[in-house]
Amino acid sequence: MKKNVLIIGAGGVAQVVAHKCAQNADLLGDIHIASRTQAKCEQILASVSEKGSHNTDGILAAHAVDAIDSKALVALIEQTGSQIVINVASSFVNMHVLEACIETGVAYIDTAIHEEPDKICEAPPWYANYEWQRKDRCAEKGVTAILGAGFDPGVVNAYARFAIDEYMDEVKSIDIVDINAGSHGRYFATNFDPEINFREFTGTVYSWQDGAWQENEMFEVGRDWELPVVGTQRAYLSGHDEVHSLATHYPDADVRFWMGFGEHYINVFTVLKNIGLLSEQPVTLAEGQEVVPLKVVKACLPDPSSLAPDYTGKTCIGDLVKGIRNGEAAEVFVYNVADHEEAYEEVGSQGISYTAGVPPVAAAMLIATGEWDAREMRNVEEMDPKPFLEVLGKIGLGTWVRRDGTDERLY
Amino acid sequence: MKKNVLIIGAGGVAQVVAHKCAQNADLLGDIHIASRTQAKCEQILASVSEKGSHNTDGILAAHAVDAIDSKALVALIEQTGSQIVINVASSFVNMHVLEACIETGVAYIDTAIHEEPDKICEAPPWYANYEWQRKDRCAEKGVTAILGAGFDPGVVNAYARFAIDEYMDEVKSIDIVDINAGSHGRYFATNFDPEINFREFTGTVYSWQDGAWQENEMFEVGRDWELPVVGTQRAYLSGHDEVHSLATHYPDADVRFWMGFGEHYINVFTVLKNIGLLSEQPVTLAEGQEVVPLKVVKACLPDPSSLAPDYTGKTCIGDLVKGIRNGEAAEVFVYNVADHEEAYEEVGSQGISYTAGVPPVAAAMLIATGEWDAREMRNVEEMDPKPFLEVLGKIGLGTWVRRDGTDERLY
Repeated sequence: MKKNVLIIGAGGVAQVVAHKCAQNADLLGDIHIASRTQAKCEQILASVSEKGSHNTDGILAAHAVDAIDSKALVALIEQTGSQIVINVASSFVNMHVLEACIETGVAYIDTAIHEEPDKICEAPPWYANYEWQRKDRCAEKGVTAILGAGFDPGVVNAYARFAIDEYMDEVKSIDIVDINAGSHGRYFATNFDPEINFREFTGTVYSWQDGAWQENEMFEVGRDWELPVVGTQRAYLSGHDEVHSLATHYPDADVRFWMGFGEHYINVFTVLKNIGLLSEQPVTLAEGQEVVPLKVVKACLPDPSSLAPDYTGKTCIGDLVKGIRNGEAAEVFVYNVADHEEAYEEVGSQGISYTAGVPPVAAAMLIATGEWDAREMRNVEEMDPKPFLEVLGKIGLGTWVRRDGTDERLY
Repeated sequence: MKKNVLIIGAGGVAQVVAHKCAQNADLLGDIHIASRTQAKCEQILASVSEKGSHNTDGILAAHAVDAIDSKALVALIEQTGSQIVINVASSFVNMHVLEACIETGVAYIDTAIHEEPDKICEAPPWYANYEWQRKDRCAEKGVTAILGAGFDPGVVNAYARFAIDEYMDEVKSIDIVDINAGSHGRYFATNFDPEINFREFTGTVYSWQDGAWQENEMFEVGRDWELPVVGTQRAYLSGHDEVHSLATHYPDADVRFWMGFGEHYINVFTVLKNIGLLSEQPVTLAEGQEVVPLKVVKACLPDPSSLAPDYTGKTCIGDLVKGIRNGEAAEVFVYNVADHEEAYEEVGSQGISYTAGVPPVAAAMLIATGEWDAREMRNVEEMDPKPFLEVLGKIGLGTWVRRDGTDERLY
């Protein structure tokens, strides 16, 4: 049994995490939130108060911390008595936060793979570059580290495991499809940190097919998907974290990730990329100033959390898993549908932040009860998916299954 | 009779100016070139040597100067004994250079209107904001200042005056059409300094119609033009310097400027503008750095002078002037056609730099001979156009006229 949660980060996802932790504070204990700018944390806590989300009279407190300063993090973990850290800050700080958790022996949860600012799309599998190099140390210290426990990666890893365990004797392929059929009404915006968002699409697209890493370019391979609720949507083979762990754990299956994009997004992306404005490498201005173009694009685009009030429509994210059952071809689509307006109503965030922010809280709740307190480093598909999907169903993200043309809610 | 020329600037236009001055050094005397980076000036002089452009054994020298430092400019003018300054540096320095010329009493020529870095498309007429405020001081000191003596503004102002003087009793409209039908083979590039180029199109489009300033947005008004050599081309009502002086000197005529754009240019421009990347106002990055987005776009785009070796095709720039002659409607199109490859062959620059760089040298030659040594500030349409067109025809830019469906070379 672990308790008291420290949330690192103060963006749109952190806001959802804070609301959901507060709604489950009877299990989770004190809730602390820390980021470089304390005022952003305080705004989030004000939103929690406003919505009346906090279900105990325990501590709910904001702190300032620079997450790359592991010493300061260690001090904050000890000072707040936090036994679970939910890291939803920029991916650039992940390993710093994990180190602080290893040092203090507390549980660590994140929602995206670690990235170094000056590197994009390193050698696959990505988890082997940073996270898995700390596997032994987590095991030695008995530290529970649940990697990539957002929606994708995260819930989709659990969907894959669940589909294989429940419906397959042998798995042939896992296709993860992520469609945002919502509309924010702006000329152009990304649904989470533009810097991280664009970095996903500027490098090589890695997929795992025929037992080997395959390389494509972004928008090279597109396919129309016929999906529940959101209908027919075009999605493109893209690089994504979960491909890198699922390919390791299910090496006999093809593992692909498909992200939905409209023509307008692709046009804007193509212009920015071809000009060099999505580059993570600094350029020198005529006046001598050194600037990373991608950071300027980020500064010009709307803050993703500002999109929430006007966001309408739904998301559909799921796994199409194919394999063999009783000697015959089997196929199942496990998925969730989320609604932008409902998310805003409940926690003041849009649907993309909601789907990313609820799962790490479900993971924290399972660590708190002991069910997921593995005392070592795990990707989500290495954990029993059923309690996870059950908690998710209770705290806001239902799980549906489409089999033989029929849709059924399971959790 | 004035002589010895100081060229300020070291971009693609400055390279053309240096070549053309060197080719006419028997009239112009010593040729000096100065910019912030002396190495750029030296590269230009190396190109002049390589092409064997210098037709005397006079001085040909490079200097370092920061053109906003009027004191240093004054010293350089005096040290070099220059009596004519051709300013083809960034428009941001124009008034600093003019001040140095007023102080030293030497002639001043530029090719574009002065701009302040943080202001775009100020109140019309633009010349009244900076240049014309120094009219009296030029007259008092007997300083010849020829404003906007590039191609457009510049030669097109002379074309307007010439068309009206030669072919009209009364002028009704002046439509300046600028078509670059060439191809540089890059994904996207501007033909001169991207910062100045984009600034032309991000503000209000001013035109002079029905005796008043009219305001439109960029790409709001488009029209197909049937032109010599380059054929049918779509051009858009745009803001441009020469509209602001021609409207003042021919207030009874409608004065409009039309710039040719392809769909690809418009798409890229629209994406960059809508995202805010063409803004001249600084944004603050997440890390606290203050950056002007437009300067980052400039740093990402190809240096315009780098386009020259691969540039193919032709430009067509001219004035469609309509009016009354002998009580009947009269119409004439006065124009030039330039060839990118021929320009590169002769002076190592592309056609846009060539058309912009040859005219200020023609103006300098007329100041040197005394024909244009007005001893006060003038826009080009206030000068006798015939000697100008004659010199231009001799040094590389011919003048053609299309009347009643017939094209004829006049100069």
